[in-house]
This record gives sequence, C-alpha cells and structure tokens, in this order.
Amino acid sequence: MRINLDDCISFAKESEFDNIVIKARQANELLKSRKGKGSDFLGWMDLPDKITDEEIQNITVTAKKIQMQSDVLVVIGIGGSYLGARAAIEALTDTLNKKGTEVIYVGNNISGKYVESVLEYLKDKDYSLNVISKSGTTTEPAIAFRIFREALYEKYQNEAKNRIYVTTDKKTGSLRKISDKENYISFEIPSDVGGRYSVLTPCGLLPIAVAGIDIKQMVDGARYSLNNCEEMCIQYASARNLMYSLNKTIEIMVNYDPSLHYLTEWWKQLYGESEGKENKGIFPAGVDNTTDLHSMGQYIQEGIRNIFETVVYLKDDMSSICIPDTNDNSDGLDYIKNKQLQYVNKMAMKGTKLAHVNGNVPVIFIEIEKMDAFTYGQIVYFFEKACGISGYILDVNPFDQPGVEAYKKSMFKLLGKPGY
Amino acid sequence: MRINLDDCISFAKESEFDNIVIKARQANELLKSRKGKGSDFLGWMDLPDKITDEEIQNITVTAKKIQMQSDVLVVIGIGGSYLGARAAIEALTDTLNKKGTEVIYVGNNISGKYVESVLEYLKDKDYSLNVISKSGTTTEPAIAFRIFREALYEKYQNEAKNRIYVTTDKKTGSLRKISDKENYISFEIPSDVGGRYSVLTPCGLLPIAVAGIDIKQMVDGARYSLNNCEEMCIQYASARNLMYSLNKTIEIMVNYDPSLHYLTEWWKQLYGESEGKENKGIFPAGVDNTTDLHSMGQYIQEGIRNIFETVVYLKDDMSSICIPDTNDNSDGLDYIKNKQLQYVNKMAMKGTKLAHVNGNVPVIFIEIEKMDAFTYGQIVYFFEKACGISGYILDVNPFDQPGVEAYKKSMFKLLGKPGY
Repeated sequence: MRINLDDCISFAKESEFDNIVIKARQANELLKSRKGKGSDFLGWMDLPDKITDEEIQNITVTAKKIQMQSDVLVVIGIGGSYLGARAAIEALTDTLNKKGTEVIYVGNNISGKYVESVLEYLKDKDYSLNVISKSGTTTEPAIAFRIFREALYEKYQNEAKNRIYVTTDKKTGSLRKISDKENYISFEIPSDVGGRYSVLTPCGLLPIAVAGIDIKQMVDGARYSLNNCEEMCIQYASARNLMYSLNKTIEIMVNYDPSLHYLTEWWKQLYGESEGKENKGIFPAGVDNTTDLHSMGQYIQEGIRNIFETVVYLKDDMSSICIPDTNDNSDGLDYIKNKQLQYVNKMAMKGTKLAHVNGNVPVIFIEIEKMDAFTYGQIVYFFEKACGISGYILDVNPFDQPGVEAYKKSMFKLLGKPGY
Repeated sequence: MRINLDDCISFAKESEFDNIVIKARQANELLKSRKGKGSDFLGWMDLPDKITDEEIQNITVTAKKIQMQSDVLVVIGIGGSYLGARAAIEALTDTLNKKGTEVIYVGNNISGKYVESVLEYLKDKDYSLNVISKSGTTTEPAIAFRIFREALYEKYQNEAKNRIYVTTDKKTGSLRKISDKENYISFEIPSDVGGRYSVLTPCGLLPIAVAGIDIKQMVDGARYSLNNCEEMCIQYASARNLMYSLNKTIEIMVNYDPSLHYLTEWWKQLYGESEGKENKGIFPAGVDNTTDLHSMGQYIQEGIRNIFETVVYLKDDMSSICIPDTNDNSDGLDYIKNKQLQYVNKMAMKGTKLAHVNGNVPVIFIEIEKMDAFTYGQIVYFFEKACGISGYILDVNPFDQPGVEAYKKSMFKLLGKPGY
C-alpha cells in the first residue's frame, strides 16, 4: 500500500498543507492518548494485537462446521454488522462463481419483497443463520431473525439450534439473553468497538471465514498496518481535510474493479457516520470505474467544483486475459491487440486521473499491490485509523452516531412501540 | 404515480417557488418547440408514440428466440447502453430466483478479473450476445465484444453467428459495418436519441424482453406519461431547481426496496450527465433504505445542510409476509407482531421523512402504486421529460456530454491510439 498526494496538495499552498499536517499529528497524539472525544469506543485501535490465536482458531473451526452443514450462510445484520464482511467477501472471492458456502445478507432492510425472495431462494438449500447485533434490538435484524429463525425451525426442528450462530455483546442485550437461554453458539463483540469499526471482530471474521478467506492473514495485515501505517494515515487525513478547507466537500472513492464496490460502501459508512455531524463533514460518495465514467463522469469532469477523489487502485488484479488478435481490425482495436486488459485498465485510470486533475478535481491516489487477505486487513486498519485522526481534526466525535436515532424515534412512535 | 412537494417547498417562500414554476413552464415550451439547446437529440420525446406494434413484435420474437437458445444473455454495453435495461430487470424480476434466461452485463468496465470471472461462469452454459453501442468504437464494449465474440465462436463455431444480436446506429459506425458484413440480427438506435434516453429503444427493450418483461406494457406506460405527466414533470423540475437556488446542491434519490437500486443508478446518469456541466448542476447521489440509514443516515441527518432528497416510494411491493407471532417477546418485537413487513417499512419511510425534514433536509416525495411494466414505463418517461425541463431551467444543454471525452482523450494518448 502506498499513498501519493501530489495531485491533491498541488491545489493548495505548501504552507496550508503543512499546517494541516501539524493538526493531524496532534489529532493522532490525542487518539493515542485515549483522551479525545468518544474514547470509550477505541477498542478497534489495538484489536489486531489483542485477538488471540485461540479466538481465530475458534472462529475458523465454527466456520468449517458451517461450511460442512450449509450451502448458504444467512448473515443477519445492518450497517457495520454486515458491510465489513460483505466488502471483504466481494473483494476476495469470486462471487459469480461461488465455491463452497455462499453468504447472503438479510436484516439490512425491511422489504417484504426482498425477504420473500430470500425465503424462496433458501427453500431447497441447506442453510445456517449468523445473527449479528450488539443489542439485539435494532429493528431490521431483529425482524429478520424472527422470520428466518421461524423458517429454520420449521425446516430442521430440533436440529435448527445447531444452525444458529449469534454474534453479540458479551453480557448485555436481548440477543445475549436469547442466545444463552437457547444455548446457541455465540461470539462476542467487544463493548468498546462500534459497529463501523467491527470488521476485525467476530462480526466480520465469522462470515469472512465461512466464505473461505484466511482470517489469520487478514488480522496479520491489520497488525502490520497498526505498526507501520501511522504516517500514511496522517497523510490521508491531512489531505482530505486540506480539501475540506478549500470547500471541496464531496469526496468520491474511486475504484477500477467492480469487486471493490462494497469496499467503497464500507468506507462510506466509516467516514460518513464518523464525520457527518454538527452540520459539518465531507459527503462520501463512490464510483466504480470505468463503468461510472459513462454515468457520473460528466458531472465529475465539469459539474460544480466542490469534488475531490480518492482512487484506490489495484495494481495487479491477478488476471492474464488479453485483447485477442482477430486478424480483423473492423472494430479499430488493433492498436491494443495482445495487450492485457489490466494494462488497458491502468491506462484508463491514468488518463482519467489526468483529465480530472486538469478539470480541477484533486486526486488522492492509493495504490494496492494485489488483493489478498493480508492486504485487505491492511486496508481496513489504515482507513479506520485515518478516520479517527480525520474526525479529530474536524473536532467531532468520530465514534458516535447520534443522528441515527432520529429516524428510529419517529418510526417507533408511528409503530406504537411502548415508551415512544 | 403521484408527487408531493409539501416537505420541499416549505423550505422556501411561496413566491420563490412560483417564480421557478414560471421558468419551468417556459423551459417546457422551449423543449416542445424543439428550438432549445441540443434539439437534435429529442428523439426520446415522442418515442412512445413512434414505436410501432411491428417493432415491438419484432423485438419480442427475437427475445423468445434468445430465451429458447440460451441460459444467459450477455449484454455488452456501458452507460445508457445497459443501465436502463438493468434498472428495469432488477425492478421487475426476481434476480435472486432467476427463471428463464438470465441477463448479465459486460463491456461496462475493463477489469480483467471481472471478464475472466464471467468467462468461467459461461463455460458450461448456453449463451448469446447482445452488443449495444451506437458507434461500435466505445472502448469498453468494443473490447468485450472482441473477447466474448471469440469465445462464442470457439464454443459454437458456425452456429455462433445466430447467437449475436447487434443494437447500433441504422447506417453509420463500425458496429453497423461488422453487423451487415456478418449478417447478424440487428436492431437500430434512432440517431436522435442519446444513450441515457435510450431505454425505450431496442437498447433497453431487447434485454428487458429477454428477461420476460412485457415491453408492450412498458411502452404503453411511457405513452401514458407522455400524454399525462407534463404537470408532474414541471413540478419535479421546479422543486429541484428551487432547492438548487437555495444551495442544496446534492440530491439524494431514496428508495425503500433494494430492487430499485439500479433505478437510482439509471437516474444518476440521466441527471448527472444532463446537468453536470459549465461548473454547475446538482450532484446526484443515492441511498437504499433502510439499509443506508445505518451508513449514510448519520450524514444526511446531521452533516452539511446542502442536501435534499427525492424519495421514490413503492406503495405496494406485492409481498404479504408478516412478522411472526412467536409466543416469545424476548426480542421485544411483539408490538409489531402479525404486522406486514410492508407496513413496518412504510412507517420507517414516514419516520425517516419526518426526521429528515426536522433535520433541515427537504423531501420531494414520489409515490408509485405498484411496480409493473406499465408503471416502469411511466417512471422512465417522467424522469426523462423532467430532466429535459430541469436542464433548460439551468440553461445547459441537457442532451450532450462533452466532459465524457476528456478521459477518453488522455487514455487514447497513453494507449498510443492512432491520431491521439
């Protein structure tokens, strides 16, 4: 992993950047001192060091059991309780050509149409449930757990309880109570880790392991970042806050591979939920290129100039496919015949970067050598730590989400929930 | 389809809205006079009236042939050449429980990893190709056509040519030449219809028909809008430009059903590409709720107040599933036991709308009775026409996309394309 800020900080005076880097270093010290805002939710900081081999072994063994017993693992969770796992699974496995146990996601919406479709899909498949919720009372996963648990018991009767895996708080919450009462296999979410920072807890690690990904490697990668990426975090946090100070209030996360789509979705939650408060913060958006060059590309090139980009570029996507030599140039492609698609994609990325910079869109460039579990762990920890620093530069609490309660309160009142 | 602007125009003075409505009516007259900017690309305007029963019959017959011969139709296209079809197919079919011929999409990126994955997926399946490109020279689909055509010929030899369906310009362009030379079955894209307005041409209609959707109904729905939705278009175009005049420069398209995700993607291209020019225009973004209430929700509720929302709400999603009565309230859900998910989802929508309006996010509310082909056609024409009006209010050419060329030029130079 490397970061290059040349095409970003060139839009400001050197002194402006230097001043923000000073602030970022202070923010980083504040983070490390554990005396800043939201410091009761800093469990993610040393998580890669704290996870024991035994815990990883325990998750891996359970994952193997799930793989043996099920065609499908149904993950029940919303927000941070599923996005981290989904992002990793999309980036690291071939979801079109599923091998082994497939992971699907419910409890992340309240669509009857969607739930009926999933129930139909599961009809002639063996499946297990992994319900992920710190409290157990978040409405969406709670509803889904009621529905899918009932379906599971109907299908497997007494055997059903061996197909339910609970990831929740160690002691408190309704889901912990249910789990203990029914004797379900359960995993703990550390009480000092918030949802959007939870991918390296069993929240993320169990589904990721079921998908066949080496979670030991992933944790090792995160640990590598913990020990080595501090300066890179400071650079990224500084650059985006420099942009913010220049009224570039929209950050677009850009990839050049569709398998990274959900990494962007994970990042959008991480940064949007951490910083979007007190009427401030950068609006996080995403594009998948080159797809969206033919959609959002026009706006990015020529719309309101309040945009900057962060490109996450995968240097080697492990493919070898080339453009065939067809002895027929009627499509005019012979100038790139026998070239690898990877090469053409790289030139598309470079060309786009040039065009956007020329169009007054600053670009932060992050390059990843190749995508594997270790690298993925690196990426996760890098973005998490940079987010903490960035939030402190902005002087908000990057570890709470008070605004998420607003819709819940209104909804509960409309639904007649006792106490609202 | 109904539109309600109460929670939007309440953020401005009545006279401000009235003044913009006057502008919108003028813009609509300009559009109808065919004398405004980009008037050589107004073919979409009377498209629903111009499509003949014979053309629809022709597309339907070909679609049936494809259904008979293939498990998979591989659509090769980027931007407007696939988004319209994909949005319709996701909204109108159950993509998890595929029945009949599956539609998949390539040529909408240059990822070697993705292309290799699709080739692997097709290995033991029967498939056909529908290559969609006005010129045939757009890089992404041209590359994909070369690769997948070669694979097709390798698999089917002489039979391959009966599995290639070309949608391109009537007379000009390299794809027309290839098609005529090889005698492929081909369909015409009217020269006066741009990509993002092309869903009701064979671009969209052929893949949509292959997916089993009644395209006659869809065109009828569009025709209904053509004759009946003018005032609604004026209202929507006025409301969003009112927001723009109040520095609400981000519009978030909101749904409450994941099947509408790609409708939002289609809308993002339509509006972003039409208006994002001359350093102006509203930045189009999207969220799928309630999913993204646990991701972007915090920002929308409490971030920078430059956001407004357009909710597209599906009143009846045709599901009947209820929250089971489990005789066990340990999850605390008994206050909604036996309620339909649809009902809970509706209360989530209402609660969110309330919370956002209270948080100073204006809401434009569009309600759809139920999702069927007729309604989908209505929606498409409504958003297209409102977009033309909106672009004219903004005083841009809503029918060109000059900025899309910028990355292409840089990329071609890097790739050593002759002439660059």
